[in-house]
Amino acid sequence: MPLLVTGGRILRPDHTVERADVRIDTDGYIDAIGDLEQTERDQPLDAEGSLVTPGLVNGHGHAAMTLLRGYADDKPLDAWLQEDIWPTEAELGPEDIAAGARLAAVEMIRSGTTAFADMYFHVPELVDVIDETGLRARVGHGVVTVGKDEEAAAADVDEALDIAAEYDGAADGRVRTAVMPHAPHTVDTESLERLVAGADERDVPLHFHFNETESYLDPDGTGERPGAYADRLGLLDDSSWAAHGVHLTGDEIDRLADTGTAVVHCPASNMKLASGLAPVERLREAGVTVALGTDGAASNNDLDMFDEMRDAAMVGKLAADDASAVPASAVVEMATRAGADALGLPGGRIAEGEPADLAVVDLSGAHLTPEHDLVSHLAYAARGSDVRHTVCDGEVLLRDGELLTLDPAAVKREADERAREAVERAS
Amino acid sequence: MPLLVTGGRILRPDHTVERADVRIDTDGYIDAIGDLEQTERDQPLDAEGSLVTPGLVNGHGHAAMTLLRGYADDKPLDAWLQEDIWPTEAELGPEDIAAGARLAAVEMIRSGTTAFADMYFHVPELVDVIDETGLRARVGHGVVTVGKDEEAAAADVDEALDIAAEYDGAADGRVRTAVMPHAPHTVDTESLERLVAGADERDVPLHFHFNETESYLDPDGTGERPGAYADRLGLLDDSSWAAHGVHLTGDEIDRLADTGTAVVHCPASNMKLASGLAPVERLREAGVTVALGTDGAASNNDLDMFDEMRDAAMVGKLAADDASAVPASAVVEMATRAGADALGLPGGRIAEGEPADLAVVDLSGAHLTPEHDLVSHLAYAARGSDVRHTVCDGEVLLRDGELLTLDPAAVKREADERAREAVERAS
Ligand SMILES: [Zn+2]
Ligand SMILES: [Zn+2]
Repeated sequence: MPLLVTGGRILRPDHTVERADVRIDTDGYIDAIGDLEQTERDQPLDAEGSLVTPGLVNGHGHAAMTLLRGYADDKPLDAWLQEDIWPTEAELGPEDIAAGARLAAVEMIRSGTTAFADMYFHVPELVDVIDETGLRARVGHGVVTVGKDEEAAAADVDEALDIAAEYDGAADGRVRTAVMPHAPHTVDTESLERLVAGADERDVPLHFHFNETESYLDPDGTGERPGAYADRLGLLDDSSWAAHGVHLTGDEIDRLADTGTAVVHCPASNMKLASGLAPVERLREAGVTVALGTDGAASNNDLDMFDEMRDAAMVGKLAADDASAVPASAVVEMATRAGADALGLPGGRIAEGEPADLAVVDLSGAHLTPEHDLVSHLAYAARGSDVRHTVCDGEVLLRDGELLTLDPAAVKREADERAREAVERAS
Repeated sequence: MPLLVTGGRILRPDHTVERADVRIDTDGYIDAIGDLEQTERDQPLDAEGSLVTPGLVNGHGHAAMTLLRGYADDKPLDAWLQEDIWPTEAELGPEDIAAGARLAAVEMIRSGTTAFADMYFHVPELVDVIDETGLRARVGHGVVTVGKDEEAAAADVDEALDIAAEYDGAADGRVRTAVMPHAPHTVDTESLERLVAGADERDVPLHFHFNETESYLDPDGTGERPGAYADRLGLLDDSSWAAHGVHLTGDEIDRLADTGTAVVHCPASNMKLASGLAPVERLREAGVTVALGTDGAASNNDLDMFDEMRDAAMVGKLAADDASAVPASAVVEMATRAGADALGLPGGRIAEGEPADLAVVDLSGAHLTPEHDLVSHLAYAARGSDVRHTVCDGEVLLRDGELLTLDPAAVKREADERAREAVERAS
């Protein structure tokens, strides 16, 4: 049955807002926008008093890290990773990853996110969760070879390439894959070369952490900057997208722009881990596609892209020493169109012919009054809890705040238990 | 009837969490904490699955500026103030202020704020709104003499002093007053001297903007720093509290500490207006009481103190280049105890003998799962929409998300209309 989103206003790709209904065909595509008559065939979705926006795109994260949300917070970065995060991650089995990913799915769907990027391990279990929950994602197995012998490193690369081949197009095409070296400095040169060649063969993009902290800046120990090194190895490409991009030279910004590599800005994670901030204004001026990501919940501590928009706009002004920097329209674009483009996924726009990935935001809150500027409200004042309905690929995943593909109480119970047990095993 | 908050966990002043019920006597004070038997006399308030926290204290703001939320955002600061904010403020009459304050009250009560500081104009109308909505506040008439002739300046000072005398103790004691020069550089020396003397006579504290931007730093044009100048005039005092404190010398931090002047950190406003950031860690180390405030909604753009806690913790780490700076417990303290202490109001603690100013936070959200650390969740992951009940002075203002002292639809309708009309009149 076609879906008819009725009575709302819609956010157009040019950031104008207009009164319009949206009809979605049975294949999940938007086939009409305007004042539409409801027919008997249409399944209505009420958007009265609401703003229909593109589904938000979370450009970088590790969904199952929801299990570590709030665990050992506020410690210096190295101690936190070495004493708390890595030992607990080592205890996470496939069922834990599924439980953490389901918890992430509840949170994402509730807060209007329809597509996300995921770099972690036990990817097949994540793919099953995406299939069952109805989300869209670009996923990959995160490769780290530092500290591994040659055989183990080769096995990790093999796993990443096998997964990229096997799961591309899964979940009725909503799952796409990428080859994901963790970062230039945590994967040896030979493995990076194999990953780049393998991605090319399989025609899937590359995704990696890039220049997040100072420890990233001499990847192979020769003094060559990560930008030059990654470019030389073929990691930078118009299908690639890089997370963070905090510590960038002018040459590195130029290389990102010249190669068409997108950058996912993760302001909350970068603040919480005291990493620094990506030069968002300079990247955008150079023509780089800049998206937004939450990173894992352990360094955020939520997966609410409304927080990410607000953080990007707020701290972007502080960093630029300019109250007009990183305006509301920029962060809305980063969280929608630019996210979809960075990940090479469809969506991010409300327009005929686009897939119906939508969030319907209730505008009735006191915090969204008065209605001077709805784009400003999306960026600065709205929050995930204002989302009434979430639609992905034409399927309603959240209707009037009710999850249709998950049982949230059961998901939370299992995640809480598994998180507790993993921490106990690790300590 | 005594109120019995049953089945929850409570946040103690030392940031431990324990299972306990809370009984509130008919005078609005907490008279018992523990495993309490419900008697026939008790009116129950269900806190099962929830965390009972002190009501949040918004240490600096301008409630009626909710009317300007999202208006002319993302402009350079001076142009925004001169072209948009000031001309529109000049159009706001007493009824507009009441409408804006009611909108603020809806937002504050919904997000667990029970007490706030307010510096604006048409204070009697604000006091009426506080009376009817059940909140607690420290209010004052903001004095600006720059650009006024001697007579107008004197009248402004008179009004501030008269209001401070007349309304202290209003709304059954929930309204307290302060004398509020806007800032050392926007009030002439003679008027400042009259305000300081007048506050002393009336035994009310002083509140002012302090070192928010570079334009504050030479208040009387002699090159004397605002800290030395304010100290010399008697503005710094253990009953005073200063908003912002962004640009502070070591000498100024020492003066704040030595005099016992509290500082209200407003991270969102400071980021959005690209003002800089208060040195929170240095102030706290020096022994200064540091509270949190939203500032007006036009520069935030909401009045949700959960956002403010998150912002303070996040950007505090970035600014200190240290992931362990401004930890969760610090921002929770800033938003509760330190806020009450800065404003010289009771509350901010869940303890026997304290007034019952409480927020009951629903912990069932996916974004508050798993339960590794509830203080971390309050600081980083919770948001105003997780607040189920708000209690101020022993009265329930919000019960299961329903406002008991305001009709939110009517409030929003009136605020929206009045905001639109004020903007039209100004342009
Ligand atoms: Zn990451
Ligand atoms: Zn202010």
